[in-house]
Order: sequence, then structure tokens, then C-alpha cells
Amino acid sequence: MKHYLSIKDIDSLSDWVSEARTLKANPMAHKNLGEGKTICLLFFNNSLRTRLSTQKAALNLGMDVMVMNFGSEGWQLEFEDGAVMNQGKSEHIKEAAKVVSQFCDIVAIRAFASLTDKEKDEAEIVLNGFKNYASIPVVNMESSVAHPLQALADAITIDEQHTKPRPKVVLSWAPHPKALPHAVANSFVEMMQLQNADFVITHPKGYELNPEITKDTVIEYDQEKAMENADFVYVKNWSSYSDYGKVISQDLDWMMTLEKLGNAKFMHCLPVRRNVVVEDAVLDGEQSLVIEQANNRTYAAQVVLKKILSSLTPKRGIKNDAL
Amino acid sequence: MKHYLSIKDIDSLSDWVSEARTLKANPMAHKNLGEGKTICLLFFNNSLRTRLSTQKAALNLGMDVMVMNFGSEGWQLEFEDGAVMNQGKSEHIKEAAKVVSQFCDIVAIRAFASLTDKEKDEAEIVLNGFKNYASIPVVNMESSVAHPLQALADAITIDEQHTKPRPKVVLSWAPHPKALPHAVANSFVEMMQLQNADFVITHPKGYELNPEITKDTVIEYDQEKAMENADFVYVKNWSSYSDYGKVISQDLDWMMTLEKLGNAKFMHCLPVRRNVVVEDAVLDGEQSLVIEQANNRTYAAQVVLKKILSSLTPKRGIKNDAL
Amino acid sequence: MKHYLSIKDIDSLSDWVSEARTLKANPMAHKNLGEGKTICLLFFNNSLRTRLSTQKAALNLGMDVMVMNFGSEGWQLEFEDGAVMNQGKSEHIKEAAKVVSQFCDIVAIRAFASLTDKEKDEAEIVLNGFKNYASIPVVNMESSVAHPLQALADAITIDEQHTKPRPKVVLSWAPHPKALPHAVANSFVEMMQLQNADFVITHPKGYELNPEITKDTVIEYDQEKAMENADFVYVKNWSSYSDYGKVISQDLDWMMTLEKLGNAKFMHCLPVRRNVVVEDAVLDGEQSLVIEQANNRTYAAQVVLKKILSSLTPKRGIKNDAL
Repeated sequence: MKHYLSIKDIDSLSDWVSEARTLKANPMAHKNLGEGKTICLLFFNNSLRTRLSTQKAALNLGMDVMVMNFGSEGWQLEFEDGAVMNQGKSEHIKEAAKVVSQFCDIVAIRAFASLTDKEKDEAEIVLNGFKNYASIPVVNMESSVAHPLQALADAITIDEQHTKPRPKVVLSWAPHPKALPHAVANSFVEMMQLQNADFVITHPKGYELNPEITKDTVIEYDQEKAMENADFVYVKNWSSYSDYGKVISQDLDWMMTLEKLGNAKFMHCLPVRRNVVVEDAVLDGEQSLVIEQANNRTYAAQVVLKKILSSLTPKRGIKNDAL
Repeated sequence: MKHYLSIKDIDSLSDWVSEARTLKANPMAHKNLGEGKTICLLFFNNSLRTRLSTQKAALNLGMDVMVMNFGSEGWQLEFEDGAVMNQGKSEHIKEAAKVVSQFCDIVAIRAFASLTDKEKDEAEIVLNGFKNYASIPVVNMESSVAHPLQALADAITIDEQHTKPRPKVVLSWAPHPKALPHAVANSFVEMMQLQNADFVITHPKGYELNPEITKDTVIEYDQEKAMENADFVYVKNWSSYSDYGKVISQDLDWMMTLEKLGNAKFMHCLPVRRNVVVEDAVLDGEQSLVIEQANNRTYAAQVVLKKILSSLTPKRGIKNDAL
Repeated sequence: MKHYLSIKDIDSLSDWVSEARTLKANPMAHKNLGEGKTICLLFFNNSLRTRLSTQKAALNLGMDVMVMNFGSEGWQLEFEDGAVMNQGKSEHIKEAAKVVSQFCDIVAIRAFASLTDKEKDEAEIVLNGFKNYASIPVVNMESSVAHPLQALADAITIDEQHTKPRPKVVLSWAPHPKALPHAVANSFVEMMQLQNADFVITHPKGYELNPEITKDTVIEYDQEKAMENADFVYVKNWSSYSDYGKVISQDLDWMMTLEKLGNAKFMHCLPVRRNVVVEDAVLDGEQSLVIEQANNRTYAAQVVLKKILSSLTPKRGIKNDAL
């Protein structure tokens, strides 16, 4: 495997989930695999779970980790081809990506959607900039339109927790005071499309996700109806896709409650706004899987890094020959 | 030992000091103890000594270290139970603490006093938030009301430097342009109460520390009288406790000078304002122990981490079972 | 070797370059040399290449690395002797440098020129502050007036790429929207003065570098003439030295183009403003060595750290004896 940019880079979800669970049972089993290898984690946005879990996964594999807040510690990047760089941006992605490739073996990138420019967001200029110009594998730590490490952790969690061969899974939109990106929802949808599951999306009208992602997934505007007999309910806010990046409803009737949840397990990627997205009783109750999901972030990252490391050819010290 | 939150977590000061001095003589002796274990250092405030010494102590024990500036790199935390999180705060301490616990074996926290809300400061909402919701040991890297790693380093330093069985130790308030917390003074007082020492506190009227901490410790408002025959003088500014967080005096007559110091050794936790808190001649002279104190920060942290590591039961990879 | 502060600390350029190339061929050959040793990288300014390459070099030598953004994560430093510290600065360089020396074995510093106060910049108050008060070796990761790790990487690159015993090397000024320091140009000039090369500097009138650095190096104001038969062209912007820190020309006629370059190899330290400093066709063409230069930053740092490590006497755990 070269890169891990989206759910599409998973060749067999069941194999990956199975391997992640094996790693979870014995996280240090491949401590030698990453010896002498370095991963750079480059953050263009804040992070808690992704920062710590990806670092932990790399350490479990014996890698060295270099963490950098690119925005505040590095140089402002230009992404346009042919730009005359006489304004605020000091370095072009072409150089930045190639340069980073000299100092590490894998680079992981977090760069959120702007939510102001749909076209630029969908072009994934930061992630694809690194993909196009780096000479090393690139891992997506949440980009404009995808968060495939989160979705893989979610798949591991469902695999651990499901009791039926074909569980019913609902993705339920929730209110939120701020406009949030579509990345988590998108990757969860794509991942569910690979699962053997009865999958339904529910949200107020106007909150339809990108139809190229939802495809023929059932969309049910009546939350109560959508949740009937659900086994897992994944709650998440996102801003409007059609009226791009706008908050068109903050209707608290869409907040998840213990009553609505019934017997379903509750999932959320975190961070979560208590008593806006979901009431305390759900998060503090026994049906919540959010901490399990967070824990599985480590093993999702670890299976990805393990697969990338396994496919690296030894080339230390002669890297520049490849340029 | 579960946590290291205050001086009260030291079961035998003399044993700890003795163990720290043994570690100092051979810092790498327990390099295998922390193998495969990770500590997260979470900073809600700036740090130099604490950041580097705690990191160094962990490295000496073979641990992996993940450092994070929680304020700028993570999410703004909510601490109130039952809060409706529709304002600026993105994540509740309940989730944050549990999540961090998934990725490391020990978490260390720095979160200063606000000096604006005495009740909240004394509730230690950040430190206690982590203590209450984390499933791993918590170390205090300076909280609102305590700095027990500093006090332990101070105890090590006094133990190394004392020449009398019962030295006279003075804690002397000093002027400062800004309002500073009480944490260092509090923990030094509590630590001295455990020592075999003749201990006196001196400060202008109105600068009394929390009486629940000073208890029956002698307070002498005449600095000159307090310092008679002192063996160690610990100088430190703090803001008013009764008129909470206020600077009620900047009287430079309280600055420590070589003349006042007599034959005593000079101590300060650093950073220190030269020629405001203490004159150059003291810091640049042979009676100053400030660099020794800083050096001992490593071994104070190392003895704490060693004790915590020794009490950890192996549980890697099955962490989620404990939830 | 004690410190690496400037090109003057290189005792034999040819030996160092040769050793760097040996390290590049086998970067892990001295993985045990740095075992149990720690380097602190202290950044007073932003960094990409220097941050990652110096970290990588240290890891290649088996060292532990502690990275700190001193400005934002630590305390604001006072550098004046005898200062009454009753303003914004919390800690004096005397304490900061001595304290850092307690926690690591080597300290590396990045502190750019202010470009507002020539005297202070030339006094190198940050770098020399650490040199004067630290008890451990100090490495310059770009100071006010020098960037010797960059220049060493440049020397390695020229050594790898040259085809003539005495190549012609041109340092050509380029336009830039912002006022930039002289550090890179200075160190490149000093390094070229040690090389067996036909070396020429070209720039508009008014952009003369410090004559104490350029000495008798040929300065040719006609760029075209300067570049005749060049083998290597090093392009770099700097602000005026005589009219200190001012931008006195942004003349795009000085931008490097493929046409001007002829058969020469193109060098730049990066980050570079495309189509201002140099046109795309040069950077995207085969004559550009910029990524090689960046790659060689690791081996420049590694040879420096290796020499310092080799000269360290074992003193762990008894460090405070030396105070």
C-alpha cells in the first residue's frame, strides 16, 4: 500500500478490522517493524485523539515520531501552480512536500475543510499537494472531505460490539453551534457501504451529504422512524453541503437522548458538545461506545502504518537517488 | 501509588529524597522500568523547567513521551457538570480525560490558578477533572494551589546542602510586577512541615497564605528578624490570598540582597525577576542554589514516575476492558 | 569540539564533508554514540527543514530529542546584564541557559535577526547568551548573522555535484517582498572562502554584505557578467546591510531564470518564493539542487552532532558537580 487517503485505500475491510483487533490484543508484537523509520505528523489544525493515537500507534511499531504544527511552527504554504509568490505565503507545496520526504519515511497530514470554498475543499489541496509531491507514503489524519482513520476505528468498534450478522446502523445528524466539516460523516458513510449492515442516514432536509458519497444509501428525514430497531446510532453534526458550509438548523429536537436511543449503542467521533449533540444521560450511560471508539483510533492507525511499513523498500541513506 | 497531586501523596519524605539522590547518582539504572510505557505531558500553561525535567525523567526511565500544549493544540474544555455546551468549549473534561487515558499510561498536567476565582482555583477543576475521569495515574506539574514536583526538588536540594541536623529555613515573600499564584509557596510550606527544620514564613501584612496550609507555622512580619541565623532562605512572590489574586505591595525593601542573606543559602524555583525579587549579587554568588534546584527537578520527577510505574499492573492492549 | 556556532568552528571543511558523505551512505552506523544523550532544540523562530533535519540527525545517532518553541511555550527572556526585571520579561538568559544545561547534553538554538537593531543583531545576544551561560555545547540552527548548518549542507551538495576541480560558484541576490536576514548569505560566503572555487557575489548596488565577511571576495554588480560560465548559482535574497534591514530594491530583473542559468546548477536554501526569487522552470527542472540541499541538512547536522558527542566526557548524574 502506498497511501492511506480515504476508505477507498482499504482493500479488504474485514481483513483490516481483523488485523487491527489482533494488534489490539498484542500492540507490541511488531515493535521491530518500524525500527529506524520515522513518521512526521503535520498538523494544519488542532487535534487531540488523532495526535495522540497516531503517535501511540507509531511508537507501538517502534517508529520515531516528529510532530509539527505546520501552521504556527512552519511556513505558510502556496498551493497554486504558477503562482507569483509575492504575498504572504513563503513556501510552495512542491518544495514543502519534497523536503519533508527527505526527513521521514511516512508523512501524516491533518488539514480541515475551509467550509468557504467548496471547490477548493473538494480538491483537497493540502492532502493532495502532499500526495502529489511527496516521495513517501501519505496518511490522512482528517482532510477536507474524509477522516478514514476515524471510520476505520468505527468499523473496529462495530465489529467488536455487534451481536447480529447484519446490524442496523443509523447515522443521525445533530445540532451544533458552529459549522462543522463533512469529513467524519463522509468516511463513515463510505465505510458503512462496505459493511454488511442495514444502514440509514437521517437528518433535517437541506443537510443532504454529497450525493456522490451517499449514492443509494437510504435517507430518512424522520429521525424517529429512522431509528426504529437500530443497533448502532452514530450521531454527528455537519454543516449544509448544498448551501455549502452554512448552519441552516440548530433544532435541539435532533439532539440524541436516552429515550430516542432505545436499545441501540451510541457512537460519536468526539469531541462532542454535551446537551446539544447528545444528552449527558447517553454519554454517561452504558450504551455509549465513544471511549471504545477513541481507544480503537490507536489500532486503526497501527494497522495502516503496519501495512505501509511492510510495503516500504529499504532505502535509507540513498533517498536522494530517487529524486 | 496512584496519583502525585500534592505533597500529601508522599508517604515518607526521607525515603523519597533518599531514593531521588540514588537515582541522581545513576539516572539510567531503571531504564527498563518504563519500556513500552508512555507519559502524556499536557500543558495548559507555559513551562521550561517542568517541561524539560519531566520529559528527561521519563526518558531516563525508558518511557515514551508525548507532549501537548492542550490550550493551543487541542480543544477548549468544559468542566461544569450538566453544562449545555453551546458556547466556545468543544469538549468536556469527562471525555478528554478518558480519551487521554486510552493513549498513555501516565498523564501529567500543568494548569495554573486563574487568580480571579478563588473557589474555582481551590477546586482545582483541571487537575481534579483529570483525576476524577482519567483511568490512569495523574501527576501534578503545577496546579492552581500546589507544585509538589518543585517542592520535592527543593527537599532534595536542602537534603544535599544542609550541614545541621535541624536547619533554619525561611520562606521570604518578594516583590514582583505581576500577580503570581500561591502554588509554589503552598507546596514548599507543606513540604517544610514534614521536614525536621526550624521554619519561618515572612511577608508584608496582607500576604498571609491560606491558613489551612500554613496551620501553626510561625509567621514573622519583620523580614530582618525572620532571617536571623537562617541556613536556607527560599524567596518567592505570591499575590494576596485574602484579597484574592491582588498585588497589594511591590515594596522593593523586601527584595533579597546579599547583605540580608548573611550566610544563608538562597533558593528560588525560577523563573526569577533579577533585581526585583533578588539582586544580581545573590544569584551570581556562591550561596545561590537555584541551578541545583532546577537540576533536582529531574530526580524529583523521576522518583515520582518510578513509584507510579512500579505500581502499574500490566494491562496493555486490554485497557478497554476496564471501562 | 565544544560549540558549532559558525563556519569558523569547522577545523577542516574537506574532512567534515567527507565524513558527512560517509554518514549519508550509512546514517545508522553510529546509532549507539548518542545513547542516553539528549539534545534540546530551542526555537525562537519558525522552522521546517532545520527542525526536522536536526531532529532526524539526532535520532540517527540514537539521541533523545526535546523540541521547544521557546517564544510561545517558555518565558520571555531578558538578555541585559544588570537589568531590573520589572517589565514583561520573566527570566534572564543566565538562568535559562544554565537550567537547560541540566536537562540535556547539547542545546541547539534558532534565533533570527531583528533587522531593526544592527548592533544587537551582530552581538548575537540569544546565541551568545546560551554560549556564555550554558554548561553544554551549543549548536547554531540559524542566528542573527550565521546559518552554518545550511552552509555545511551546501558544501556537501557542491562536493557531490561538482565535476571540475575548481568550479565557478556565484552567489546571486534575488528580489523578495519582505526584508530577510543576512545569515544564509554570510555563512555561504564564509564557506566558499574555504573552498577551492572561483567565487563571485552579484547583487544590485546597496546590497553589499558586511565587508568583514565578504573580505576580498569579488563583487560584480552585473549579474549577467557574474554568471558567465558558472557551474553553481546560489540564489538568495537579503535586505540591505548598510541601510540596515531595508528593502531597497524589488527589481524582478534579478529573478533567476532558466535562460540566465545556462548550464549551471541552481541552489537555494529554501523556503523560496516561486516566480519572484526564481522562476518555476528552474525549480522544476533538472538543474535544481534544492531538494538535495535539504536532504543534506540531515548529514550536515549529523556530522556536527557526531563530533560534539565524541568530545563529550561522560558525566551523567554528576552534572551538578560542575557548577
